This record gives sequence, structure tokens and C-alpha cells, in this order.
Amino acid sequence: MSTMLSQSVATLTASSYLHRPKRGLPRIVQRVPTRGVKSTLRRVVCSADYELLYFDARGAAETSRILFAVSGVQYEDSRYKFSFVEGKPKVEDRHAEDKAAGRFEANLDRLPVLKVNGSAIGQSKAIERYLAQEFGLAGSNSIQAAQIDAYCEHVRDISTAYGKERGSPFAPMSDETKEKIEKWFAETLPGWFERLEKATGPDGFAVGEKLSLADVCLHQLVTAGTMGSDERSLASLCEYPKLDAVVKQVH
Amino acid sequence: MSTMLSQSVATLTASSYLHRPKRGLPRIVQRVPTRGVKSTLRRVVCSADYELLYFDARGAAETSRILFAVSGVQYEDSRYKFSFVEGKPKVEDRHAEDKAAGRFEANLDRLPVLKVNGSAIGQSKAIERYLAQEFGLAGSNSIQAAQIDAYCEHVRDISTAYGKERGSPFAPMSDETKEKIEKWFAETLPGWFERLEKATGPDGFAVGEKLSLADVCLHQLVTAGTMGSDERSLASLCEYPKLDAVVKQVH
Repeated sequence: MSTMLSQSVATLTASSYLHRPKRGLPRIVQRVPTRGVKSTLRRVVCSADYELLYFDARGAAETSRILFAVSGVQYEDSRYKFSFVEGKPKVEDRHAEDKAAGRFEANLDRLPVLKVNGSAIGQSKAIERYLAQEFGLAGSNSIQAAQIDAYCEHVRDISTAYGKERGSPFAPMSDETKEKIEKWFAETLPGWFERLEKATGPDGFAVGEKLSLADVCLHQLVTAGTMGSDERSLASLCEYPKLDAVVKQVH
Repeated sequence: MSTMLSQSVATLTASSYLHRPKRGLPRIVQRVPTRGVKSTLRRVVCSADYELLYFDARGAAETSRILFAVSGVQYEDSRYKFSFVEGKPKVEDRHAEDKAAGRFEANLDRLPVLKVNGSAIGQSKAIERYLAQEFGLAGSNSIQAAQIDAYCEHVRDISTAYGKERGSPFAPMSDETKEKIEKWFAETLPGWFERLEKATGPDGFAVGEKLSLADVCLHQLVTAGTMGSDERSLASLCEYPKLDAVVKQVH
């Protein structure tokens, strides 16, 4: 995941959520059950200086940006701009300079990297789990924390399985790929969702009784271009009331 | 990873480590810095009843078994036996019965599953992170915990990259695959190790100043048949003194 750029970089990012006027904030920010989060926040806001380094795209940083947005925690959203040259992304020179200077060593010279008070953490999923823990989005006890972790791994499995069918998101969609995607939405994804539904809690949350990283991961799977068409992804939920409730709760 | 069986099921498992006479114990058990672990253990041994469900193979459960072995924590090592029929694994009937009964729902009908006092946790990596946290193998603070998590994701990236070259571990090795494996050990793996070396601590531990899940993950990468030949895997370390020190510390 680490260096994957979003398929659709022009769409709304978590960062722009933060800077939109309050009236325009999506419900994800307004609805967050903030009691646990807020009490964590006081500590976090006072003690930590966060910088998230990634490309100017959603990709492997977006879930972390959502976690900052949901929790209302300030951070520096450092983005390397890029453009497409002959269908391939070309990143601004500053990226190569920072890489050569060792700024991304914590992620084996890749992005994203999270800096916390000068310490560097690599790997998008490790960053997400760290932030979830810090922001009170990792359940109420160690078993719930592990179940939330596992739920996110389920979502990752689904995303990876889609990626195998789709191939590079930058590649043009061949007829063969189009057929694979049809089969994905008609057969494969329902197979995953049927089993994920059984592993989902009954109260509108993936695990436990409050918002967690697991809910955000499922929400991202169907709303962040992860499986190409968000419209088709969201429509695929309609036969799975518990999954649907989780996504609606976050949305 | 979840349903992958080990390539070499006949070799030594963590479970057999536990049952070997003390003289024969590998240093991984004798050398564990037990102070932190022991204090955690008292609580764990008193309060938790662990059962790890997996196939009778190393595969996606072995790192968790190593964590139990390293920490000296008792658990039920439940294994589904299997044999190979026409080159494919055929698992004993009890597996299908337990699956139908919903015993693996926490992992979307797959293995491994960890039962902790009746609660079920799926996903091998989530189980490993949970056990590491419980057993004091997740660092000394939240930043170290995240860096250990990230380090294990680096190792996972390497393992995944190898898997893409190798294809199914059950498939016969074609000439094309053999060529890919040669290139892996000659070019690709050194590229990974060079960068991983830079992200490795100077004191014989991957992260921080004591044994953690990160050390165990690196050790498993080069000693559990993960990249086919452990001999070649171990030999690949010789130019990377920090990686070599971590593996020797655990071994």
C-alpha cells in the first residue's frame, strides 16, 4: 500500500474536510462520539506535534487523515505534488531530495511517514493503528482492540483481492479487466461481504459500542475509490444491513 | 496469509520447541529478557485461557506459537491435520465441520483463530500484535510499539514480494520460477535488506532495547522457510550486520 497513489486524486480529501466551513462538514466530523476521544485529545494536543508526509493524493494516507479529522487533532499535512507524464505519476523534485536526505527511512524510503515529536513511524497501517490507539478509536479493552485490528485486516484483504483483479490503478481498463471487475461485484465481493457481515457487531459499529478504526476502514473501502466505483461499492452493501449501518454511522 | 500452509510442514515447529527437553531448547527460549514478560505473564497465566486454532503446519500461526514459546505462556495448540492428495492439501473432516459450525467466523471462515477466554480473534497479524502487547513484546512506549508494528509490516512486505515471485508454495518449481528466485536472492532481497538495515536499531534489537515482535518477525522471515531456502535467506544477511545481530540474538 505504501506508495500507492489514489486513483482519483481530484476528489475530496480528509484534509479539505478540516478546512471546510463548519456548515459544510460531513457528518463524520459532526457525529463522532467525542467523549472518549476528547479526553484523549487533551493529552494528544498538548503533547504531540504531528506531521504526516505523503503525496498530494488520498492513497495510503487517507485513513490516517480521516482519523485526524474525526478526532479534531491538528497536524501538518505535508504533501508532495505530482503530475501525470505519459500516464505515469511524476512527483515534484523535493520528494527525491527528501528521500535522498533519509527523511523516509522509517518506511524504507517510501511514503507515508508520520513524524511525532521528531520520531518517525512508517507503514500506513501501523500509522493508522498508532493514531487509533492515541485518539481512543481502538476499542474499550485489549480484546476489542485486537478485534478492531483484525476487522481492518479483513478490509485490507478485500482491498488487496480487488487490487489483484484490477491491476495497477493507473493502467487503462482493458476488456479483460472490465470482465474481472464485473465478476468482482457480481460474485467475489458479495462472498466477502457475506462473511464480513457475520463478523460485524449488531449496534451500528463494526466492533463494540463506539466508533473505531474498524468503522473508518470499512467506510474508506466503499467511499474512497478503493474499489473503483464508490457508487457500485455502496450499492453492494444493500443486502448486508450491519455493514450498511456501520458505513451510514460514519458517513 | 490466513489460510496459507507452510511450505515445509515436516520441519520443527514452535510447539515442538515447547515440548523438547530443556537441554535441547533453542536460545530463543533461554535468552528471553523475561523481566517485563514475566510481570505481564503473571496476569496472563492467571486470567487468560488461550486456544490457537490452525492447521498442523507452521504457516500463518508460527509467529504466534513462537510468541507463546518465548514468553513461556501455556496455550492449547489446536491443529487440523491434513495430507496431500494430487499435490493439494486435503484437511481432515473436523475442519469442515468446525467451519460450518461458525468456529472461524472471527476470521471470515479461515484460520488461524485465537480464542481468549471465549472471545475469538481472527487474522494472523492481529493475533501476533495482540499477543506481543499482552506478553510485553511491544516496546516500552507507544512510539516504540508503532515502530515495532511498522517493522513487522516491512518484513511482511518482503515476504509478500517473495510470494509474488514464487507463486503458490505448493506449485512445482518451473524453470521460469527458478530464474525469478535467483533474481530475488541476487538483486531484490539485497535491495530490501539494505533499506531495512537502515531502519534497524544499533543494539541487536530491531527496535528499542529489548526483544520484541519485530525481532521475532525478522527471525521468522529467514528461518521458517518463508523464502524457500533458509540457508540462502540466512546467508543473505551477512552484509547487513544489524539485521544479522537481530537474528542471532533471537536464534
